[in-house]
Amino acid sequence: MRIAVLGTGPVGHALANRLLEVGHEVWMGSRDASSEKVVAWQAAHADGPHAGRAHTATFADAAAQAELLVNATGGMVSLDVLGSVAEDDIAGKVLLDISNPLDFSNGFPPSLSPAITDSSAEQIQRAHPQARVVKSLNTMNCDVMVDPSLVSGPHTVFVAGDDAEAKATVVELLASFGWPRPDILDLGGLVTSRGLEAYVLFWVDVRMALGTNAFNIAVVR
Amino acid sequence: MRIAVLGTGPVGHALANRLLEVGHEVWMGSRDASSEKVVAWQAAHADGPHAGRAHTATFADAAAQAELLVNATGGMVSLDVLGSVAEDDIAGKVLLDISNPLDFSNGFPPSLSPAITDSSAEQIQRAHPQARVVKSLNTMNCDVMVDPSLVSGPHTVFVAGDDAEAKATVVELLASFGWPRPDILDLGGLVTSRGLEAYVLFWVDVRMALGTNAFNIAVVR
Repeated sequence: MRIAVLGTGPVGHALANRLLEVGHEVWMGSRDASSEKVVAWQAAHADGPHAGRAHTATFADAAAQAELLVNATGGMVSLDVLGSVAEDDIAGKVLLDISNPLDFSNGFPPSLSPAITDSSAEQIQRAHPQARVVKSLNTMNCDVMVDPSLVSGPHTVFVAGDDAEAKATVVELLASFGWPRPDILDLGGLVTSRGLEAYVLFWVDVRMALGTNAFNIAVVR
Repeated sequence: MRIAVLGTGPVGHALANRLLEVGHEVWMGSRDASSEKVVAWQAAHADGPHAGRAHTATFADAAAQAELLVNATGGMVSLDVLGSVAEDDIAGKVLLDISNPLDFSNGFPPSLSPAITDSSAEQIQRAHPQARVVKSLNTMNCDVMVDPSLVSGPHTVFVAGDDAEAKATVVELLASFGWPRPDILDLGGLVTSRGLEAYVLFWVDVRMALGTNAFNIAVVR
């Protein structure tokens, strides 16, 4: 698949690299496609197994090239970033939203906005009604997202969205990352993103208590 | 121990019954200590193994009798309930706060207030500075709280609070309910109640997806 990864932070890098590994063609989208960071990423993949499949572009150009979009930008800037993309380059496409609208501007612990009665994913869906938004992967560290074997035993990843086909596409992507299908839990409509995003405040607490990012939760019955 | 369980809903009943089972003397505190519900609860324990250890009282009188308080009221009314107790009957006592400030007044999904930058537990601590507030058990259904064997395999219960001795007392209580000590995770100060309470929106999503209350999460590394 032709996939745009919007965002060049740790989440964007982890996703872009893993998508290359599992065989996709990847456009890493950024504000400045000539920045040292994205140029270095492309150079690192110029030769070897991913040669010719790692591209850099502006957010708008990356989205234009892609069949599927991954929003790996910070939740506080996601609407701005997606607003810079032509609506035709979003419409009808699966938009995997990994973002969390964490706000560290007042220090630690972070705040979260929107929250509780709204969510980043729903804001994105409202701003781009023809996007097929699926929320997933936002409940864990980016290394765990793309390599679930970093955590021992079964553990759970969630999907939420209003478009069943789009969710099925994301589930395939998760499976290709190594997520066993029984560990992929469909929470229902995009409204359940409120819970998935609120969860992240809890994640931060657990992360501080454990002193490691290499953990997740398993839903157990 | 002499324990006041404030609240007569399913959480209050589950806690009160389990505390009797593990040998404590229990005062079920309510707005109206002569209501049918609490009288029936006391009557059910008048004979048999818990004879003489099940009492009903107003919130204020229950707290006055007890060495340890359990706040099993709804988070939206907890401050009012605790405000009806004499400060001397709270000061210095461990106050196990199980409440969640879920607000269903606008239907489903619920809202949550306070949230994100504050929590019900912190509000209670501020209103009663001499209480030794410990947040725990609010992240699961009340049957699972008092009988972790309802969920198969290891799963996690959290504690949060600013008073280490008070947390240790609550950990003993959890252990007496059947929680294995490795499954009791101390998240740190009471500020981490923000994450524990925000988590409940996620819990509601998972509960709806699974169609059962008999689940929990395991933190896995």
